[in-house]
Amino acid sequence: MMSVKSDQSKLQRKAAILVEALPYMKKYNGETFVIKYGGNAMIDESLSQQFAEDITLLKQVGINPVVVHGGGPQIGTMLKKLDIESEFIDGLRVTSKDAVSVAEMVLCGGVNKNIVADINAKGGCAIGLSGKDSSLVTAEKIIRKRADGSEVDLGFVGTPKAVDATFIEQSIANGIIPVIAPIAMGEDGQTYNINADTMAGAIAGALNARRFILLTDVSGVMNKAGEILTELSFSDVDTLIKDGTITGGMLPKVETCVNAVKAGVNGAVILDGRVLHAILLEIFTERGAGTLIRE
Amino acid sequence: MMSVKSDQSKLQRKAAILVEALPYMKKYNGETFVIKYGGNAMIDESLSQQFAEDITLLKQVGINPVVVHGGGPQIGTMLKKLDIESEFIDGLRVTSKDAVSVAEMVLCGGVNKNIVADINAKGGCAIGLSGKDSSLVTAEKIIRKRADGSEVDLGFVGTPKAVDATFIEQSIANGIIPVIAPIAMGEDGQTYNINADTMAGAIAGALNARRFILLTDVSGVMNKAGEILTELSFSDVDTLIKDGTITGGMLPKVETCVNAVKAGVNGAVILDGRVLHAILLEIFTERGAGTLIRE
Amino acid sequence: MMSVKSDQSKLQRKAAILVEALPYMKKYNGETFVIKYGGNAMIDESLSQQFAEDITLLKQVGINPVVVHGGGPQIGTMLKKLDIESEFIDGLRVTSKDAVSVAEMVLCGGVNKNIVADINAKGGCAIGLSGKDSSLVTAEKIIRKRADGSEVDLGFVGTPKAVDATFIEQSIANGIIPVIAPIAMGEDGQTYNINADTMAGAIAGALNARRFILLTDVSGVMNKAGEILTELSFSDVDTLIKDGTITGGMLPKVETCVNAVKAGVNGAVILDGRVLHAILLEIFTERGAGTLIRE
Amino acid sequence: MMSVKSDQSKLQRKAAILVEALPYMKKYNGETFVIKYGGNAMIDESLSQQFAEDITLLKQVGINPVVVHGGGPQIGTMLKKLDIESEFIDGLRVTSKDAVSVAEMVLCGGVNKNIVADINAKGGCAIGLSGKDSSLVTAEKIIRKRADGSEVDLGFVGTPKAVDATFIEQSIANGIIPVIAPIAMGEDGQTYNINADTMAGAIAGALNARRFILLTDVSGVMNKAGEILTELSFSDVDTLIKDGTITGGMLPKVETCVNAVKAGVNGAVILDGRVLHAILLEIFTERGAGTLIRE
Amino acid sequence: MMSVKSDQSKLQRKAAILVEALPYMKKYNGETFVIKYGGNAMIDESLSQQFAEDITLLKQVGINPVVVHGGGPQIGTMLKKLDIESEFIDGLRVTSKDAVSVAEMVLCGGVNKNIVADINAKGGCAIGLSGKDSSLVTAEKIIRKRADGSEVDLGFVGTPKAVDATFIEQSIANGIIPVIAPIAMGEDGQTYNINADTMAGAIAGALNARRFILLTDVSGVMNKAGEILTELSFSDVDTLIKDGTITGGMLPKVETCVNAVKAGVNGAVILDGRVLHAILLEIFTERGAGTLIRE
Amino acid sequence: MMSVKSDQSKLQRKAAILVEALPYMKKYNGETFVIKYGGNAMIDESLSQQFAEDITLLKQVGINPVVVHGGGPQIGTMLKKLDIESEFIDGLRVTSKDAVSVAEMVLCGGVNKNIVADINAKGGCAIGLSGKDSSLVTAEKIIRKRADGSEVDLGFVGTPKAVDATFIEQSIANGIIPVIAPIAMGEDGQTYNINADTMAGAIAGALNARRFILLTDVSGVMNKAGEILTELSFSDVDTLIKDGTITGGMLPKVETCVNAVKAGVNGAVILDGRVLHAILLEIFTERGAGTLIRE
Repeated sequence: MMSVKSDQSKLQRKAAILVEALPYMKKYNGETFVIKYGGNAMIDESLSQQFAEDITLLKQVGINPVVVHGGGPQIGTMLKKLDIESEFIDGLRVTSKDAVSVAEMVLCGGVNKNIVADINAKGGCAIGLSGKDSSLVTAEKIIRKRADGSEVDLGFVGTPKAVDATFIEQSIANGIIPVIAPIAMGEDGQTYNINADTMAGAIAGALNARRFILLTDVSGVMNKAGEILTELSFSDVDTLIKDGTITGGMLPKVETCVNAVKAGVNGAVILDGRVLHAILLEIFTERGAGTLIRE
Repeated sequence: MMSVKSDQSKLQRKAAILVEALPYMKKYNGETFVIKYGGNAMIDESLSQQFAEDITLLKQVGINPVVVHGGGPQIGTMLKKLDIESEFIDGLRVTSKDAVSVAEMVLCGGVNKNIVADINAKGGCAIGLSGKDSSLVTAEKIIRKRADGSEVDLGFVGTPKAVDATFIEQSIANGIIPVIAPIAMGEDGQTYNINADTMAGAIAGALNARRFILLTDVSGVMNKAGEILTELSFSDVDTLIKDGTITGGMLPKVETCVNAVKAGVNGAVILDGRVLHAILLEIFTERGAGTLIRE
Repeated sequence: MMSVKSDQSKLQRKAAILVEALPYMKKYNGETFVIKYGGNAMIDESLSQQFAEDITLLKQVGINPVVVHGGGPQIGTMLKKLDIESEFIDGLRVTSKDAVSVAEMVLCGGVNKNIVADINAKGGCAIGLSGKDSSLVTAEKIIRKRADGSEVDLGFVGTPKAVDATFIEQSIANGIIPVIAPIAMGEDGQTYNINADTMAGAIAGALNARRFILLTDVSGVMNKAGEILTELSFSDVDTLIKDGTITGGMLPKVETCVNAVKAGVNGAVILDGRVLHAILLEIFTERGAGTLIRE
Repeated sequence: MMSVKSDQSKLQRKAAILVEALPYMKKYNGETFVIKYGGNAMIDESLSQQFAEDITLLKQVGINPVVVHGGGPQIGTMLKKLDIESEFIDGLRVTSKDAVSVAEMVLCGGVNKNIVADINAKGGCAIGLSGKDSSLVTAEKIIRKRADGSEVDLGFVGTPKAVDATFIEQSIANGIIPVIAPIAMGEDGQTYNINADTMAGAIAGALNARRFILLTDVSGVMNKAGEILTELSFSDVDTLIKDGTITGGMLPKVETCVNAVKAGVNGAVILDGRVLHAILLEIFTERGAGTLIRE
Repeated sequence: MMSVKSDQSKLQRKAAILVEALPYMKKYNGETFVIKYGGNAMIDESLSQQFAEDITLLKQVGINPVVVHGGGPQIGTMLKKLDIESEFIDGLRVTSKDAVSVAEMVLCGGVNKNIVADINAKGGCAIGLSGKDSSLVTAEKIIRKRADGSEVDLGFVGTPKAVDATFIEQSIANGIIPVIAPIAMGEDGQTYNINADTMAGAIAGALNARRFILLTDVSGVMNKAGEILTELSFSDVDTLIKDGTITGGMLPKVETCVNAVKAGVNGAVILDGRVLHAILLEIFTERGAGTLIRE
Repeated sequence: MMSVKSDQSKLQRKAAILVEALPYMKKYNGETFVIKYGGNAMIDESLSQQFAEDITLLKQVGINPVVVHGGGPQIGTMLKKLDIESEFIDGLRVTSKDAVSVAEMVLCGGVNKNIVADINAKGGCAIGLSGKDSSLVTAEKIIRKRADGSEVDLGFVGTPKAVDATFIEQSIANGIIPVIAPIAMGEDGQTYNINADTMAGAIAGALNARRFILLTDVSGVMNKAGEILTELSFSDVDTLIKDGTITGGMLPKVETCVNAVKAGVNGAVILDGRVLHAILLEIFTERGAGTLIRE
């Protein structure tokens, strides 16, 4: 027999948030959200635990999260331990066959399984995959051209040429949370390392995801006044690139978002992974917490 | 292109409420909640609009609400207009054949259709029924006995003898919100008026509802210190009746809850219908807002 | 151990009727028949009992009856009891807000539930609905124009603007006999009374009914020789209106039938509701018993 | 534009027969009726055409007829043409290997295909089978014993040892009317001729048929006053055999009926195949037209 | 406890054949093969037993065989026994009504049931049908014209006018092996005998069979060097007819194959029925064992 | 137009092998085969390519292979490169936290993905998993006890405590070939390395596999005469252990097989992985190629 004094005003604030959140429940029920996971959110132990919790919670309430992760620093550490040094051409790092083997081992056998284990420890049911599994992603070697037209061979660095998401869709329907490492096989039978943002965007497109969420270490796209821009159309993006608002590292992120939308995603979000429960806030509140890019 | 300044602490409070509410989403997904609707919540225009909104919201997020309503005051008004006076025996009101016809007309043709229309206006898909429709409830005449064993004939006042909820279950599966008036046919071919709390409890039992929520004009069961008792076992109820904590009008309410649980309901809640969004708070917060009675 | 003398000629007459009726069984199996119920058939106790029996029988043999009923006399009686007098404009009765409330109460809470109870007592499984339930019918205010172009406001009298028969179809599939009162909500949030023939025709059209049967107090359309015309094409109808064979109260009935056929009904029948088992004879015999109107 | 004068009393007689017949429609919907077809009904051209019509009609209204036929006279004619003479032992005819080949040819390749063709010409969808097809019936040689215990070898005359009705049930579900000849394979790999009544009864039992109808050239079982006995229990049968009412050729027919009921049939009927539409009258009228035997 | 000395080279030969055969398993899984069965393969006891075994094996591994058989010699024998002599017109045999009755009896009641029994004895589940059953084939009288344009009436010899393979498809899905005799009903209500090759080709076309296999008593189509031609296109066929390679009895066989392919068969094979397990070799080895004709 | 001279005796040998193999097709259709892959078969490039081909072929013909692999030598090589030295207690190697991390990386990120890629290159659809994915296997630390009862801590070496094969079964049904590395999470949140044979046997048991095939570098269990024992019962195993026939490294292999059978596998086979297509020969020939152990 428990008793309690009720605090009416606190109850009404709660009710207001519920009335705000519940419609998103319906709106996003059964929808797929592809989340690029990396950076601080992956390294900080408290953020990574809470990320696993949020992902599990999403699945439990009927949203289908698919996680694509990076792991650059972890690869770097292992390459160093194994004394595998990188060659550079024109200032660009070349990925040798040995290096891509290490990348695969670290990403698929290390980082990936840790994320899977974290989610499963929170009560989810994750599986770890790479682009090789069920031939999910077929890679294509990236060809960089010099100004004189000659090609630079950067080794085993690829980009997604084709995505067959059949098995991902079946797994989702079976209650699974797929966690995917950015490694894939080329048609030449070679293993390629793929940029995690690009891999995530391509998978999101193939899944016609409702949202592609790019977790980063910045606060979304900001205007020159330092305010977060909550929603951008393609033409907004054009304008902001031209006027120099979007620059530097933000440029490829915005481009990946635009490409994902063009490939079939309903909307792409650049979201600050350093904020606790950023994903829940983005999904269940009116304003969200990052920058939404839509056609 | 919209911009915004983010308020981190407000966002974190929101996230905390979401983390609290989301697990209930999963817990109650696909479950049936039978709600007895009456009193102030039905008369006050603002409360009744918000009730219709909450019911619609529940259905949208995967919970199946079933509404059973009363309408005593509305019947009284119509009886007066039609100059139908009640006879009294031993101080108890007798329901004549004319009176029960008026009750049926007012409940099924007035109150019921208003609730249906309110829910549908909010985007729900409600239908109005009485115990006669699809032979949902079979009534049995209530027999009151005097101390000397002689019977008092109170006329066409009944109690549920049998409930066949097949059609209600099919309608729920079809996305319908059933709204039910407490009128039913007896095996004698006569129409009976049934106490709305009793009708709701019997239907909740037949549906093996997850919760039977009795909306009332009081703040749940309170201890002598005036604090709401949030959860009571059957033995708690016994104790509180014996020590005089539960008395008066609260007695039959508690009894209806206990009977509903015995008939198959997982838990019954006496809830203050005067609180805005009382139902949402009860369902999606840890403490709820009323008194939960469970075996 | 029972014994019997067989009467061969009687047996052969029976066999002949069965050979006539059985093919209709197959022809109409799973088909929907919308029946407008009203007039003598509804008032005469013996006819109304037998109507309930016929409807139940139809459902049992695989035909899906949907009943739409009127109730003008019953509304009139109640308006009188409540001293609600009608205003008249240009000789037309105006339906006030009070009057439409009474109409709804009487139709939905009185007449409708009686029909439901009668059918259920015969072993059927009926539910009573109005156009408000599951937003079945959306009403539109009827605008009458005077010769000078000015509009007459007749109050809350409507006509069906849209019909969403989804729930009716689901109920039919669940073995239910829907019984529908001619009341509906307008997009303005007001309640409207609709002519029962019009309501029935609109619902029959939305259901693509095999037959729309209009039970009336006359013997179908007759030629000037007083013989019933068993089948009429649209052009027959035109001819008969022009030559004055179809006049008076028969005109709107024929028009309702033509409209129902245009809206998707396979054929519409004006049938004499005063004949015992008129519906069975219409459905299972070669000639039927009324006037069939088809394109 | 057709007109007609209605004859009310004739209409009411029709309605009465419909009200009598329709409930049987519901009662027997989806039920299986196994009909032993033979004798006059098969030889008389008018009766056989009408038999094919009745069978087709039954299927169309949702009843599942299964026909098992005989063909003794046709076999006799062919044996004669081929100069195959029968040997007799103790006055019983012996079926030689040649004779059973002829029987199979005549039954399966002659009689059976004629019945199939007749039904299909009426719009049904029949297929002709024997006990060999889909291993429907496994035969067992009949062993007759003399008084002194020695066995009489009557050749290739068998009795059903096992029935596997799977394919018959699937065919019925696919809208097929199976027509079955009384020929089956033994476990010894030999072909056996089976008494058609026995074959029909065994198949009816395996199908748990609602009715096993034995069409014969007599008017059902009659009492000593010459009246048809419309229904007999097993104990009635015992009494009537003991008191000499059931004798001669009626004895094995009654026994076959009793065995069919014991094997799973709901009721078995001995029916006069010489009456036009005997099957329809038996199924759709209260009294039926033959003798029903039930436990 | 069994021991064995392994013979590596024999094992490797086995493995090689398995690696060759297994892909056909996948390729033909669920596909329909219509096999015209006749000639030596049907008469030679050892070949016919092994035919039944092969057919059963095919069904067990997921291929759907449909057998269409002939029976000319057996009909001839019976006509002789019954002293039914053939009339000849212009040197062509005329099939009288008596003769077609005998043909039906022998094919449907004799040959057909023997094949069914053989397959069932091997563990298959066959049923025997003719074109009459389920109105599978509708026949059309063959009209031969003389040079002067006058018609020769050859009696009851027909050709398939229409094929309704619905029931065959349902039976196949139910695990049945259909065995079909070349007899069918005409629209004139007469029974016709059809050439078995033509009947088989028409059924194969209606079933869109993967293969139509014509078992014959020759080694496929051979070139002038006496080598079997393993695959022919339509234009190859044209060439070989023009240059006189395909002549005599091979001409109608090749024509039937071409027609079957035009009617919907993927490929037709003329196969030597005198080779043991010819069907298995044709289906599961790279070269097959006969001549494949494809567009 | 291709021609060929047929070699009848070669064709008949092929036919004989097909007749031998086809029944196994039916017998094993839809059955699950768990294959422990390791040793020479995994290291020899030609054997590993052919293993991938056989696995793909099995799946294509309706058998469901599940591969569990080892990788001891590969782990050893990487530990050496990273200068991680093993501690030894009582002569047993201790697996440190660093070592198990390397094992996971090598097994899940190296060996596993190579096998997946090989199978997919042959046209299969494999996915790589470890015991962590979908919480497939829960590990338990292995406790070794010294003679004096004191425990030896060998570090992160585990044994399967529980197997949840739900996702494996769903994947199989979706056409997937699961390839599983012997790594799993303990309830203590630690990662454990598991012996691959034991892991495979436990998974085979949980899947109630038809066969658990243990590919090794020996020719099955041999008797003292050097002949392979093709089938052993549990009691045979007991005898052979007692009489010293089964000794050394064969002992734990036999024990793993017995345990798998006890856990639900129908039969376990110790098979020589050095024989080309050993798996196909084992599955599709009468004698198989290894030692089958069954209860």
